[in-house]
Amino acid sequence: MNTAPSVRTQVKRGVQRASYDTALLHAIVDAAYICHIAFDDEHGVHNIPTACWRSGGHLYIHGSNGSRMLKRLAEQECCVTITHVDGLVLARSAFNHSMNYRSAMIYGRFETVTDAGKRAALEALMEHLLPGRQADVRPGNEQEYAATTVMRIALHEAACKVRTGGPKDDEEDLPLAVWAGVLPLTQSRPAPQPDPACSLPAPDYVRAWQD
Amino acid sequence: MNTAPSVRTQVKRGVQRASYDTALLHAIVDAAYICHIAFDDEHGVHNIPTACWRSGGHLYIHGSNGSRMLKRLAEQECCVTITHVDGLVLARSAFNHSMNYRSAMIYGRFETVTDAGKRAALEALMEHLLPGRQADVRPGNEQEYAATTVMRIALHEAACKVRTGGPKDDEEDLPLAVWAGVLPLTQSRPAPQPDPACSLPAPDYVRAWQD
Repeated sequence: MNTAPSVRTQVKRGVQRASYDTALLHAIVDAAYICHIAFDDEHGVHNIPTACWRSGGHLYIHGSNGSRMLKRLAEQECCVTITHVDGLVLARSAFNHSMNYRSAMIYGRFETVTDAGKRAALEALMEHLLPGRQADVRPGNEQEYAATTVMRIALHEAACKVRTGGPKDDEEDLPLAVWAGVLPLTQSRPAPQPDPACSLPAPDYVRAWQD
Repeated sequence: MNTAPSVRTQVKRGVQRASYDTALLHAIVDAAYICHIAFDDEHGVHNIPTACWRSGGHLYIHGSNGSRMLKRLAEQECCVTITHVDGLVLARSAFNHSMNYRSAMIYGRFETVTDAGKRAALEALMEHLLPGRQADVRPGNEQEYAATTVMRIALHEAACKVRTGGPKDDEEDLPLAVWAGVLPLTQSRPAPQPDPACSLPAPDYVRAWQD
């Protein structure tokens, strides 16, 4: 990142929206709960959503040791994509309508995290989901850790695309009497829903959840 | 759909969350502004986000005639995935934490929509984005339609996975003094942002945008 794009990360359409900035890439990954991973096997190409998180210069995923995807990812190159849709862009003409978004595509090969690194990686997942949660829960036991595979991919060969701002109308359409602007979309956090079997007071990080 | 899964759509992990119900598939597609499309070329597997919409039993996409992805999709099988994250599921143990989500995976090959069908397809996109908008805008001209390719893929070979509800704790963890429940996530619609160059009153469908 912050370097010349590779053959795979050279953005070809909408070049003005492309970025190879590491800070932007990290921000897009950190804002995500899931990514979509494209890989292939003898049946063709697959595209599977899975939880993800970042530590340093890597994106992490995890799953059961028996996962077909994790087995394949250890053996081959893949493409990991994260997209956030930020709004609908209403232009004065139909064909200039657009969307605001932030996306990141990461190419490369996952490597399996060693047993020694697994605990720290999964605690980083918990910290990503909900800072403060890890200290409250019953931690994983040996059997749970042993049944789980953690993998990571370097964020080195990656490209971002971002569109922000209002409509880009053709000059001759600007005088038209058509409302133009952006209809924003955001992720919101409604009130927590306690488990019916749980009568404990909500901890601070749960009470802080709601928008 | 509503039929036996294919080799590619037979869900292998988390089978209790799998569904082959057409109404559910349609609902997941209809709730999406974008999908992620996995396909490959001589550089390997790619995974590209793009706007999508549904008409009847097909998912539609569009792009410039010069799009590398659209050219490849006319020639090969692909996998289209849509995922909505609905919440974080907080269990009493670290390893039983989960997410609520709705996802759909569609396998098959895109076909190019003929010139005769292109107009109706793109008007359906506008109707999907914002019902009522099409009648207000400057419609596409011959040149704009000619420069745009619309493609569609049948929703026939597809599988959905859905997780809803609270945490599933191990029986022996239930007495632990750990808050458990769901932290919901939803897509929200903040106030419209008019283009600075637009002083027209917002039409009904814009005023109705905000949550």
